[in-house]
Order: sequence, then structure tokens, then C-alpha cells
Amino acid sequence: MSVLMNEEKSAVTSGQEKQWVFLFNELDKAEAACNSKKWDDVRSFLGGKGANLFEMTRLGLPVPPGFTVSTEACNAYLAANHELPEGMWEQEVAAIHAVEQQVGRKFGDPTDPLFVSCRSGAKFSMPGMMDTVLNIGLNDETAEGMIRLTDDPRFVYDSYRRLIQMFGSVVMGVADEPFEEAIADQKKKSGIKHDVDLSADDWKVIIERFKSLVKAYKGMDFPQDPYKQLEMATRAVFNSWFGKRAIDYRNATGIRHDLGTAVNIQTMVFGNMGDDSATGVAFTRNPVDGVKELYGDFLINAQGEDVVAGIRNTLPIARLKVDMPEAFAQFMDIVTKLENHFQDMQDVEFTIEHGKLWMLQTRNGKRTARAAIKMAVDMTNEGLIDKPEAIMRVTPEQVDQLLHPQFSAETKQKSRSEGNLLVSKAVNASPGAAVGMAVFDADTADEWGKAGKAVIMVRPETKPDDVHGMIAAKGILTSRGGATSHAAVVARQFGTPAVCGAEELEIDVEHRMMQVNVGDAQIEVREGDWLSLDGGAGEVFLGKLATQDPDFEHEVELNTLLKWADEIRKLGVWANADYPKDADRARRYGAQGIGLCRTEHMFFEEERLPIVQDMIMATSKARRLSALERLLPVQRNDFEGIFRAMDGLPVIIRLLDPPLHEFLPSYHELVADLADLKVQLQHFHTLSEIDTALGQVRQKEDILNRVKALSESNPMLGLRGDRLSVVMPEITEMQVRAILEAAIRVKKDGVDVHPEIMVPLAGHVNELKFVKEIVDRVAAEVFAESGTTVDFKYGSMVEVPRAALTADELAEVAEFYSFGTNDLTQTTFGMSRDDAESKFLLEYTEKELLPTNPFQQLDRGGVGKLIEMTVKLGRSTRPDMHMGICGEHGGDPDSIEFCHMAGLNYVSCSPFRVPIARLAAAQAAVKHG
Amino acid sequence: MSVLMNEEKSAVTSGQEKQWVFLFNELDKAEAACNSKKWDDVRSFLGGKGANLFEMTRLGLPVPPGFTVSTEACNAYLAANHELPEGMWEQEVAAIHAVEQQVGRKFGDPTDPLFVSCRSGAKFSMPGMMDTVLNIGLNDETAEGMIRLTDDPRFVYDSYRRLIQMFGSVVMGVADEPFEEAIADQKKKSGIKHDVDLSADDWKVIIERFKSLVKAYKGMDFPQDPYKQLEMATRAVFNSWFGKRAIDYRNATGIRHDLGTAVNIQTMVFGNMGDDSATGVAFTRNPVDGVKELYGDFLINAQGEDVVAGIRNTLPIARLKVDMPEAFAQFMDIVTKLENHFQDMQDVEFTIEHGKLWMLQTRNGKRTARAAIKMAVDMTNEGLIDKPEAIMRVTPEQVDQLLHPQFSAETKQKSRSEGNLLVSKAVNASPGAAVGMAVFDADTADEWGKAGKAVIMVRPETKPDDVHGMIAAKGILTSRGGATSHAAVVARQFGTPAVCGAEELEIDVEHRMMQVNVGDAQIEVREGDWLSLDGGAGEVFLGKLATQDPDFEHEVELNTLLKWADEIRKLGVWANADYPKDADRARRYGAQGIGLCRTEHMFFEEERLPIVQDMIMATSKARRLSALERLLPVQRNDFEGIFRAMDGLPVIIRLLDPPLHEFLPSYHELVADLADLKVQLQHFHTLSEIDTALGQVRQKEDILNRVKALSESNPMLGLRGDRLSVVMPEITEMQVRAILEAAIRVKKDGVDVHPEIMVPLAGHVNELKFVKEIVDRVAAEVFAESGTTVDFKYGSMVEVPRAALTADELAEVAEFYSFGTNDLTQTTFGMSRDDAESKFLLEYTEKELLPTNPFQQLDRGGVGKLIEMTVKLGRSTRPDMHMGICGEHGGDPDSIEFCHMAGLNYVSCSPFRVPIARLAAAQAAVKHG
Repeated sequence: MSVLMNEEKSAVTSGQEKQWVFLFNELDKAEAACNSKKWDDVRSFLGGKGANLFEMTRLGLPVPPGFTVSTEACNAYLAANHELPEGMWEQEVAAIHAVEQQVGRKFGDPTDPLFVSCRSGAKFSMPGMMDTVLNIGLNDETAEGMIRLTDDPRFVYDSYRRLIQMFGSVVMGVADEPFEEAIADQKKKSGIKHDVDLSADDWKVIIERFKSLVKAYKGMDFPQDPYKQLEMATRAVFNSWFGKRAIDYRNATGIRHDLGTAVNIQTMVFGNMGDDSATGVAFTRNPVDGVKELYGDFLINAQGEDVVAGIRNTLPIARLKVDMPEAFAQFMDIVTKLENHFQDMQDVEFTIEHGKLWMLQTRNGKRTARAAIKMAVDMTNEGLIDKPEAIMRVTPEQVDQLLHPQFSAETKQKSRSEGNLLVSKAVNASPGAAVGMAVFDADTADEWGKAGKAVIMVRPETKPDDVHGMIAAKGILTSRGGATSHAAVVARQFGTPAVCGAEELEIDVEHRMMQVNVGDAQIEVREGDWLSLDGGAGEVFLGKLATQDPDFEHEVELNTLLKWADEIRKLGVWANADYPKDADRARRYGAQGIGLCRTEHMFFEEERLPIVQDMIMATSKARRLSALERLLPVQRNDFEGIFRAMDGLPVIIRLLDPPLHEFLPSYHELVADLADLKVQLQHFHTLSEIDTALGQVRQKEDILNRVKALSESNPMLGLRGDRLSVVMPEITEMQVRAILEAAIRVKKDGVDVHPEIMVPLAGHVNELKFVKEIVDRVAAEVFAESGTTVDFKYGSMVEVPRAALTADELAEVAEFYSFGTNDLTQTTFGMSRDDAESKFLLEYTEKELLPTNPFQQLDRGGVGKLIEMTVKLGRSTRPDMHMGICGEHGGDPDSIEFCHMAGLNYVSCSPFRVPIARLAAAQAAVKHG
Repeated sequence: MSVLMNEEKSAVTSGQEKQWVFLFNELDKAEAACNSKKWDDVRSFLGGKGANLFEMTRLGLPVPPGFTVSTEACNAYLAANHELPEGMWEQEVAAIHAVEQQVGRKFGDPTDPLFVSCRSGAKFSMPGMMDTVLNIGLNDETAEGMIRLTDDPRFVYDSYRRLIQMFGSVVMGVADEPFEEAIADQKKKSGIKHDVDLSADDWKVIIERFKSLVKAYKGMDFPQDPYKQLEMATRAVFNSWFGKRAIDYRNATGIRHDLGTAVNIQTMVFGNMGDDSATGVAFTRNPVDGVKELYGDFLINAQGEDVVAGIRNTLPIARLKVDMPEAFAQFMDIVTKLENHFQDMQDVEFTIEHGKLWMLQTRNGKRTARAAIKMAVDMTNEGLIDKPEAIMRVTPEQVDQLLHPQFSAETKQKSRSEGNLLVSKAVNASPGAAVGMAVFDADTADEWGKAGKAVIMVRPETKPDDVHGMIAAKGILTSRGGATSHAAVVARQFGTPAVCGAEELEIDVEHRMMQVNVGDAQIEVREGDWLSLDGGAGEVFLGKLATQDPDFEHEVELNTLLKWADEIRKLGVWANADYPKDADRARRYGAQGIGLCRTEHMFFEEERLPIVQDMIMATSKARRLSALERLLPVQRNDFEGIFRAMDGLPVIIRLLDPPLHEFLPSYHELVADLADLKVQLQHFHTLSEIDTALGQVRQKEDILNRVKALSESNPMLGLRGDRLSVVMPEITEMQVRAILEAAIRVKKDGVDVHPEIMVPLAGHVNELKFVKEIVDRVAAEVFAESGTTVDFKYGSMVEVPRAALTADELAEVAEFYSFGTNDLTQTTFGMSRDDAESKFLLEYTEKELLPTNPFQQLDRGGVGKLIEMTVKLGRSTRPDMHMGICGEHGGDPDSIEFCHMAGLNYVSCSPFRVPIARLAAAQAAVKHG
């Protein structure tokens, strides 16, 4: 407190009382109040928008004067059951007086009235999620005063009706539609088509209707007292923090619910003061493709909401140079300064009032995945940021987006030429290929999406209320609005492909359809019809277009960024691959080894399955050995291919894992087949037909009996994994032989081969010893037969808790560990994934019993503890023991961060996720060293 | 080494060399050699029999001089691929010379020959399991010399033929049958019935036939050199350590395989030197019922093997007082001294040679369960041992035996009177009731037993080769031999009921049958026919007699011992009980609470199952609630009964645990029923019949659909436990209401009720919070409705690894923990018990991949680690947290010991195992403090 007492007195507090309200030029006071000069803390305290207004003010930029009510005030208000914290309102009034002094106008004074905007501003930008009220201070009296000052009644009445409309809907909770209807009605009466053509008198009529509307809906008058307006607006912003759409947005984006929002009160400047006025939004770089060029839209003689809402079609920002060259030059100068200052692409709002440029807001701009990557690389090359910062600027999900399927040029060409199915080319608002069924409202999109259907959400424009549907959709299509419209911004944030402003489409929400012209014909697209969107090209196609894999090698910036990631990361990134073609892709995507080659997938292939079934059906060891002999060359060939693809890199091959009945037809299938056969039997007459059919019946019955014998009550916990090696060692012998013979063959061809043999499901060191004896014996045989040897390693999966608990013992035999976190999660929770996901896991996450699905994101508190224990125990026996993870979690960024922290050597994931893992691993290294 | 060099030189070593051989009077040397004076170490070194011979020698008792080759020598010999360790043989020769000096005779000297026996002697007694050779030193020459000395050619030739026979079969591996045939043949030729009637000349002829037999079978002569005899016998004893029957015995009794056996060489004394000679075995107390009285058998003019082998029918030891009063007095004096010295019941062998008593062996005697308990209590009351020692003298398995079912007096009376089915009353060799099918050889007994059949093994007498069959049998019946015969000793050790020496039975092993006289009729009992044995009464019945529970309250000594156990133990002993009658029994057996009351068992009862099925089939919440309303009073009644039975003690009630489909018919059953119904439908003609049948079809189809919907791939890991509470909270609400309403009702009746509500399968603290909210809400309702409250606790099962790993978090909500070690073992190993035990667990224990079945004996290395972790973490949050175990392991002594060491508060087991757990818990406290 003594520190504060020594500070210069604030313009808004009268002494020692707690300061809730800060003028834009009081950044030092805010820093003192939140006890930190760290930008992150200041942003928490003032909100992102507020903090940036303070920063711009400090930089000497033309910011309309104003003040910010801190997030601390919001939280105090919400905690006190919607009671304003003590002194806050008085400080707000004092701040208004300070602004009056700065601007030279007076709030509520008809002779020279001051008007202000009131906007929310949380720490993290939540575009359009919360409420804004403009033109506060206008009332019947000040409106007349303003008309006297500006001699522009049309502008003043338009502004006044905007206040009543926004205040009515946002603060007082009147629905928006009646306001719009009143305007439409007046246009009809005056025989006018567009809002701009409405006269001052029209607006005056409308104002009266609006006031009646408020009174009718809410039983109270629209407040004439400017201070009452301000207080109600401030409360409304506070309250909007726990509005449904704000909560939905935070849930979707992982923003904490206890941050609260600040309230920014700022002098109004008017972009709708005539043709020497304008308003716009712009990005310092192209947020779609990342190119370093000014990007944005503006409108002459308009207010900012008109641009953002996407209601009027805007002009590209470059045109400002033609329309207002001086303001444009000043603007270019300011935004360059801002980007350099914040070291990131800025998303700014500006207004030009009678030729004077005002900066209303700046913030780090949202961007597409491609743009994020390009900007990170470009800014590093420009010297604006360093490589670790570049790594942190791109999320793993953004890398994922670039690797999503795309439409090939040929596919699109074919659609265009053959079927004339390209129905629109509009704003490429968010890139990527999306294929789905058209739906025309957010609730349906949400419902269908949750039911697993692919949907394209089609709307004239989107509003914050629509976000839940946008999240559920594969793609978004609007007929109005540009690259900075709500639909575009939200779509880019969630990585959902979007095409906006497709004006050719006549969208009829009420009848759940849209009409498009294809050639001369008019086609109706109804709910459930298929559409394909190319968000990168802004193209809309009818029907389902085929997608293709991305061209990873030609993503130059991505590869540059990943090269930097490789320099920084400590975790290796390996891939799970069962076939040579997968191994090949993994290598091209940057995998440093194969962490899991599942031998059973090879067993399932068409020409092999009958041999595998013979092996399982064998009643004698001799017959089983004969089947295994036929499998040997097949397996050996598979391994040869993988070894060749991974020349110079390690390949971990896991011995057979699944229960044998998985290779046989299902019980139900067999019973049905048998019933069919027996019916057929009735219709045969010749002896040979009957003999053949009887033979088939007998064969099916044999299989049925074996299926019954192999059936288990809990197959996940049954005869599988290394238990198969104990019960049928000859299968293991064949597999080990195939691995080592393949290794020796490719070695003879000059391949640098590093085979590693991995035992699944081990829980006791004796199991590892038992299998090791087989491995060593077969290795000795193979080496003797071939007259040469090959180095190989012998290791174990850690996928049951007992393996983790006795990892010191297992490490006496195992040379490496690989965490099978799918099974480890199942056994640690005692939860079968199939059953859980179909029966109750959704209720668990919905009721917040679990934060996320632990099969997607590694459960650090439980499964993670076992991993940490394994690392510690395993390395107590074998200090340099190599350990990795090969479960599905190996491709999940949060889980990868954990693997880094736990000291694993590598993660192994699907080839497609290798680039994501490379970035995530580097981010973990940047964050945790 | 310097210590040894300062020692007095041994009679058998020449200086600094390692001493392998020790004279009976060199106990100090042996202690020095094994570097310990601890009795346990000395026994390990000299074997149990040897150590006792040394000790008796030190006590000044009449022990025939001799020496012992140490177990260390045996292990060195076995490790060196059957090469005698350096110096050992020379020491043995030197020891023979020392004995020659002590006795005044010379080994191999025809003028005054010394003869010795050669016996095995491991640390733990393995009766009859290993080889013994008597009369070593006899050959053609010394035999003639001995005849000159004794003037008793019959005795000498008998002894000589015994040597050749034993040496031939035991050392040289000739089958025993041809020897016996040769004797039988000679008796026939001489027209003689019994061995004792064979003359010296008969024996001389037999000796020559025996020598030819050896030569014919083995291609080498019976060795005439006494030293060759000694060396070969020594080696044979060493080799017998890894003989099949020794290995079987050790496996069955849990003796380690690396202990090795000592070899005891002792001067022969002869009980067959005429009618002033005798030999016998005796126990200082009755090993069958524990009464303090001399117990045993002897034979005049016989060698000891005749008594033990059970071939000749012996005289009771008390008769010795009549036949040889002086020797008897001296004997009584010695055995009293021995019992006091060893502070335990002694099993002694003695021989009287021309009136002089020699003690050949003493050891702690084996005894029945009943005797063990009585002796432990008596000896404590006599002041011989203290209470902790008494506790350690009885094994938990022995307590278990006493609690095994018995035949009631009425059952037996009925059998006797109605069917005349009592066919023999013979030696009550090992108590207990056994019911099984007759088999006539050990291999069949073993085979049938492993196949799960109850068998009674019937033999004229048993031999060490028969042990595997005896272990597999429910009961043992012999027609020859007494209370100290091989059959009796082994049966008592394994707690198998046995009746011995039932001479009325004519057992024909070759034809796999026996003949018995029932009244005037002769009945044949064939393989597979049922028999019932009362081992405690020595009675044999035809057919299957009903068994009944033991009369625990009237087992006076057992209750005394358990009272002492209660004073000593630190672990509480609770019981698992689902019904009032179980709770009642548990309490009578000493349970201090109910650790697990499974509510689902109540659901399965006949009149309730339809309501439960209604509840599951309910498609609406309203219908489900209506079914639950009907279940409420039923559950409440169950709980009332248990609360009343456990007045003053805690009762832990577990909420519903199993997956719901367990309450519905099985899929296969339903499909079959439906098929039947549809066939029936073909035969109905009236509309009402058809309507009814169609209704039934529809109902079955509904159930079938629900069964399909509820079916899971791994039900153990599916929708069960507290997951049911999450998905269908109304079930939990009903159960909590039933528990608390019942508690309030009995409380109003003056019962001191302590309900504890337990959540199954929790793995995350949020689950416990979720259910707690329900519990607290329902409790508030019930308390408000009844106008009173009742104290209750809320706790959690720990049965999935995640609960253990996060036990600190769970303890924030749970007030107590109970380990469900069945499920915890399943999830820790990733092994379903059903599938494992039917598919591969047997191979795991047979191949020694696991030491024991972890579902029977708690896996300390894995599951135990989780328990220790839980204790530590749980008490870090809640220092006095009460924890127990309620899995099947709660009744297993080894697991109970672990629970004590891990710091649990109690074990909870089946009511029948409560007394066992009381003892095991006390033993753990004695062992570990």
C-alpha cells in the first residue's frame, strides 16, 4: 500500500481507495494495481483490447480517449451477486469527467455532447462473443444538440436509433427482429430499398417506434440519462461473461471461466459522418495465406459494426489509398509501427472522422494454419522473432490442418467440366476441403454432427449464437460477408473450411433450402444434400468430391519450420507402420524410426487369412507347424520391405498380439452360415451335391467349435499378447525367424538394418525371460544357417500396470520399453475403450467427471504416474534405457508434452501425425527446456 | 580361516582342508564350519536328522556312534556334476576309523565287524521320500565272522539279505518285486507261511538268488567291499535329492530345491537279535488328538523299517512296559527329557539290542490339525512355551481343516442302521470326513483328481512313489499299517482324512477292486464306486454320506488359541456377508465387522429378479423409478437383518456393482427360447392361443434387444460399478435410501448401527464426488422424513490401478478404503480371472512363469505395490484413514501377512475363513511385530 501511496494520484480515485477504473493514459497505474509490468499480467488485468489501447496511447497513436474498468472489478461484481464493487461507479463517473477534459466535450450536455462506446475486452479475444454498445450519451436532448453542431440530422438520428437498437437488444434483452421489421416497414412506407436512402425524418419516425418497442417489451422507457445508460451498459458487459455463447466459446477454445472481462469506455468517433468519414478493419498481413500485405475491408460513411457484421459488402482496404490517400499513408505508418511493436501480425479497427484517422483497437490477428506457418517463418527470416518464438506461434492443430485431405486439381477440373457442378466462387475465408450434407441452422448442424454425420452449415451470415453449429460442421458457407465477417473469423479459428459471401446462392433458411443456378437451370439444394467446399479457393461444388492427401514435400514454409523444430526438440519422433508403403510415408514425413510394426495386420490380408485360420484350427502341433511354415516366407517378405524402407533407422516389430479368435469368423456369422447351408441342403438331389454341402457343413461346424473354445468373457484381458507365446511358442518361433531372416537378407543387399523385437502385454519378468529363450534359440539357429549375424534388440511393451510397477525387474531382460498407452489406459482405469466410448464416456466428459477422453489425451494423473514410475524404475536397472510411446497418444500434442517432461526418448505415432509430433515436441522443449 | 586353525583338530580332517564330514560328537566343529550356533543354521548344514543326533549325543543319550556328511557336501557334489568334493571321501574313511575306535569293532573285519546304516537327512523332514540303506559292511566274509560271534546264522543271513535287497533296489536300481518273489518262492518251497519262519538255510539260499538277481539286472556283482558299499550308498543318498518323489514332495510342501540333503552314517544296532531285541517308533504325545500320552508302535525281534513300512502289524508302545520294563523306564525318561529339551512333541525311533536301548533318531513330530492345536494350548498351559510360540505352532491350514465339513452323528447312525454300510472300523490315522470314488493306484488318483473328481485312494499300503496320488485324493484308505505308517504320516501332513490298517478289506490292486463283507454278503467295490471315510473315527462307509458344518463353538482348544491370537494380532478380522444368516455366522466365528455386503446378490433372488429385470427393461425413467420403488422395501429389509445381526459393529455396504446384463437371460438362451416359441406358434389354432404366444414372442424379443444393447466386448471393464451411478443415478438413490431407512428403523429399536456406504470401481475423485452428492442429498431427505439421523461413513473400493495411483485425491472424499483385490489383480495384470484360469494360468504356474495363482495368493510384487502406495498416499491426505481388504485374498494367510506388513486395519473374508484369518493375523504380528 505504501508503494501506491507514493504514486502520483490517479485522475479517477480520491486517495487510498482501491482503483477499479483506469484512464487509457494511466498504464503505469494499472501496472502498479496488478503489481506487475509483465504484459501477460497487464492483459489479464485490463483485458486484451484494453491493454492494447493503453499501449497504443503510450506509443502516441491517435486513440480516442477513454478508460477501462478492470477484470478485477468484473470478478468482484460477479462474486458479489451482481453488486458493483465499492467505489467503482464513482471512479467511472470521475473517469468520464477526465475524458470530458481531454476531449473538450461534456457527457449529456446538449451544447457539446460527448458520446462513448462500451465494449467488453477479456484477456483472450472472443470475437463477437460478448456485448458492445455504441453511441452512449445520445438522448432526445443531446441528439438535438448534436444536430445543431453537425447540421446533419440524418447522421444523428441514425446514430440515435442505433443506440436504442443495440441498447435495447444487448442491455435490455429485447429481440432484434422487431427493430429490423420496423426499419423494413418504414422503408416500405417511404418506397425505399436501402437503409442509406432513409431520410432524417424516416429515422426520426423509426426512433419513436424503437422507443415504443422498448417500452412495450420491457415495461420501462429507454433511459434518457446518459449516466444510467453507461451504468446499465457496464453491467451488461459484466453479465455477458456468463452468457451462453461466451461459455460455449470458452469451452470450445479452452479459455478459463474465471478470468472475467474488462469494460472499455471510449470516446465515440464517427465513420458515418459523411463521405469524408469511413470505418474499417485490417490485418497487417494476409490472414488467409500469410503474405506480407495489408489485408482488410472498409466502408465509407459507416459505423464499424457494419463491416464486422458482414451485412454490407465492403471495399478492399487497398482502395482506401485511392479514396483517402493521406489517411491511408498515416494508417500504413501506424500499422507498421504496431506490428513491429507487438512483433506479430495485427488486426486493427479504425475510423476516419471527417478525414481524421482514429485507431480504435489493435490485437494479434487470427489466421489460418497456412498463414500462421508462413508468418512464423517470414517473421523469423525478417529478424522480428527468433526460432523458438516461431515454433510457439504455430499450433500443432494448424500443422494438422495443412495435412488434411484436399481436393486435387483434377478432381475439381472434372467436376467443373463434366457436371458443371461448380456453383459459386466467392471469398476464400478459411482454407481446406470440406464435404458434407447441407444444413441450414446451427442446432441441426450440432445435432447431426454429434450423430457422426458430416455437415456443411449454410447460412446467409452467421452470428455468435451459431458457434455451436459451426464447431460441429465440416465446412461453413455464407452468402453474405467477407474475409473478416464473423463466419470467416470463427471458421479460421477452428480450422473449419469456409466460403463466405457467395452471393449467387439464394439461401432460404425458413424452407431449409437454397437455390443455385447451374447453367440455365435452377437447382434446389435441400437439407441433407451433399456439398463440397474448397475453402482455400473459395469454391462451392454440388455433390461429393473426392479428396486426396496433401503434398507435404512441397509445403516449403512448413518444412522450414519443422526443420527448426527438429533442431530444438529433444524427443525423437518415430512412426507406427505395418507396411512398407506406410514406412515410406513415415520417413518422408520425418520419422526417425518405426516404433511399432504390428505383425497381426499382415495376418489379416486376404491371401494370408486362410493360412492363419489353418494354423489356428490345427488340432496337432504338426499341422500347426505346417501352416506356420507357409506363413514364414510371407512374413519375411513383409519385414524385408519395411527394413529396406527404413534403411539406417530402427524398426521395432511387435510379436503377435490379438486373441486368435479375431482371425476367425464371428460366432453369429457362423451360426447364420450354417443355417443357410442346412436350408440349401434340402434342395440338393444328387449325391455329389449333397456330399459337397455336407463337407461344408462339417467344416463350418469345426470352425464354430474352435470359435466356441476360443471365446472369452473379456478378450482384452485374455489369451493374447505374450500369453500366446507361452501357450503356442511355435508362433513366436516363426515370427522371430521371419524377422531375423529378413534382416539378414537385406543386410546382404547392403541395407543398414536395425531390427528390434518387442514383446506385447508382459506383466512379469518371467514372461520376458521365457520369450527371450525362444528368441535367442531361434537367432542362434538362423545365424548358423545363414553363416552371418545381425545385431538386434529385445524389448517390451509396457501396457499393463504390473509392467510399470515392476519396471526395474523387467529391465533386467528388456533392453527397451515402449508404452502401449491404449491398453495401459484401459487397465489403469479398468475401462474398455469400446464399451466406454459407446456406453458412458460421453456422460463422463459431459458431467465433467473426466476433463477429456483419456483415450485421446493421456491421463497424466493416473496413467502418467505409471509412466513416470516406469522411467525411474527402468533406468535404475538400465541407466540408458531407451523408452518411447507407441499408443495413439503419441500423436497428441498434450500427451507429447507429457512424454517430453517424463524423459522419454521418443514418441511414435501414425505417419500422418509425424509433422505434428515434430512441432509439439519442439514446443515442449521450448516450454520446459 | 584363522579361527578354524586355532580350533582343536577334528578326528576326520588332516589339517587346514575343508571339513565335509563330522562325527556325532563334533557339534562344535559343525557350528564353526557353518559359522553359526543358531539351531536353524546347524539344521541347514547337518540336516534335521543329523543335527538332532548331534544334539542327543551332546545330551549324553545312548546314540549309536556315527557321523554326518554335510548338506554342503551334497550341494557341492550335485553342482560338480556328481563328483565328490575334494577330501570328502578321505574324511568319510577317517570318520569310519574314528567310529571303529569308539565302538571297538572294525569295518569289514570278519573277526569283529562293524556295520553301519546310511540315511538321508534334509533340513526339513521328508518322511520316506529319500533312500536309506542298512547293514552296510556285511559281505560274504563278515557275515561268516558275525555268525561266529553271535552264533545266530538266521539273524545274520536275514540281515545280509536285507542289505542286498535294499542296496539292490535303492543304490543299484533293481526293482523290488523280484526280491519279494524270490522270498515268496522260497517260503513255498519250504512250506512256510511267514517270513519269521524262514530258517538260516532258507535265507542263505535267498541270498544267493538275490546276488544273482543283482548281477542279472545290473550286469555287475553286488559289491563285497564295505567301503565300495559305503561310497555307493552315500552317492545314492545325494542323488535321491533330485529323485522324482523327492521333487514332488518338495513341490507339494513348498520346500526349497536348493537345500540338499545330508548323509548320516551310523553304527547298526539290531532289533532283530532275538526276543530281547526290539525296534519301534513313538511320539511323546498322541499325534492324532494331541493328548499327552506316549503313542507309537514297536515290534519284537525286527528291524525299524518293518515298523515304518507298515508291512507287519505292530504292537502298541504301551505294551513295551510289559515286555521290557527296564528298557521302557529308561525310554520314558529319555523321551521326557527330549520333549523338554526341544520344547515340542518328539517323534523318536529306537532299537533295543539284547536289552540295551539305543536312540536312533528324534525330531519334532508331525501331527493332525486337532493335535497341533491341543498341543500348542496344552504346552502353553504347562509353561513349556509361551503364547506367541503357541500361535506359531499351528498353521492356518490346520485351523481350516478343523472347520471342514464333518459327518454328523445322525448321518453315520443312519448309515449304520439302515444300510449296514459301515464296512470297517480301523486306525483313525488322519481325521476329517472324505467322500469320493474309489481308485486303486496313485496315477489314477492323480489323473481323476486333476480332472476335478473326488477320489478315495485305496491301497494295501502306500509307498513314497504314491505321494502324487495321495495329494490328489480326498481320502486315503489302507488295509495294512498303523498310525505311524507311511500312509498315516503323509495323510496327516497334507490334512487328508485317512483310515489305515483296515484288515477286513481285501484289496485287489491288479483287478482294481476290493471285497468287503456286509452282513453275510460279500460286496465288491470297483473303481469309481463311492466311499465315505471318517478319518477321525477310523470308519469306512459304502456310498456317499452327507456332510455337515463343524461345531465351531465347541472346539475348546481352538477357541482358546484364537483368543490368544486376538490378544496378539493387530489386524482386525471382518467378514464378507450378504445375508443376515452369513453375518450371524461371521459374528460367531469372531468377525469384528462386515467388510463387504454385496447388494447385487440380493437382486438375484427368485422373487426379486423379475422386479430387477423390469427396472432394466424400463424404457422411461418413470417406469424405472416404479420398479425401483418396489425394490426399495426389499433391500431395506435385507439391510435391517444384517444391521440387527451386527449390532454394535460396522457394516460396509457396497453399491450395485455388476453390469446390468447379468440380471437378464443370456443371449443364447433367449435365441433358443424364441426359436421354441416360434415352432409352438405353428401348432396353435385358436386366436387366443396365438395372441398369447405372439405376446410372449414380443416380450422375449424386447428382452433380446435390451440384451443386445447392453452387450459389451469386455464386460469386466464396461458399464458397471460406480459407472452405473453416473448413468442411472436413480438406482443409487434407491440403494442409499434403503440403507439409511433400514439404519434408522433398527436404531429406533435400540440397535447400535454403524452403516458404511461403499462405492465400487472408482478410479477418479470426481466419481466419488458425484456419488457423494447423491448420498448426501438422499441422506438429508431420509433424515428429514424420519425426524432423526444416523451416523454413516462414505468410502471407496480400491480395485482399479488408477484409484491406487490417485489415492491421495480420492481420500479427499472417501473416508475409508477397501481393496477389491480380485479386480485389482485382474486390472494390474491385465488378466481376466475366468479366461486366465481356463486358458493359460495353469501353464504359467507349471512353467514357473508365476510362483502361484495370483488370484489365490496376493501378488506382492505388483498388486502389493499398489496397496502400499494407496496406504501411503491415502494417509498423506487423511492420516487415520481406515483401510482393509475384501477380496478373496482376505482369507489367505500369506496375503494376510502382507496386509499386516502394509499397515492395513483389517482383512475381510468369508465367514468360514474368519478363524483362519484370526490366527494368520496373529502370526504376522509375531513375525513382524
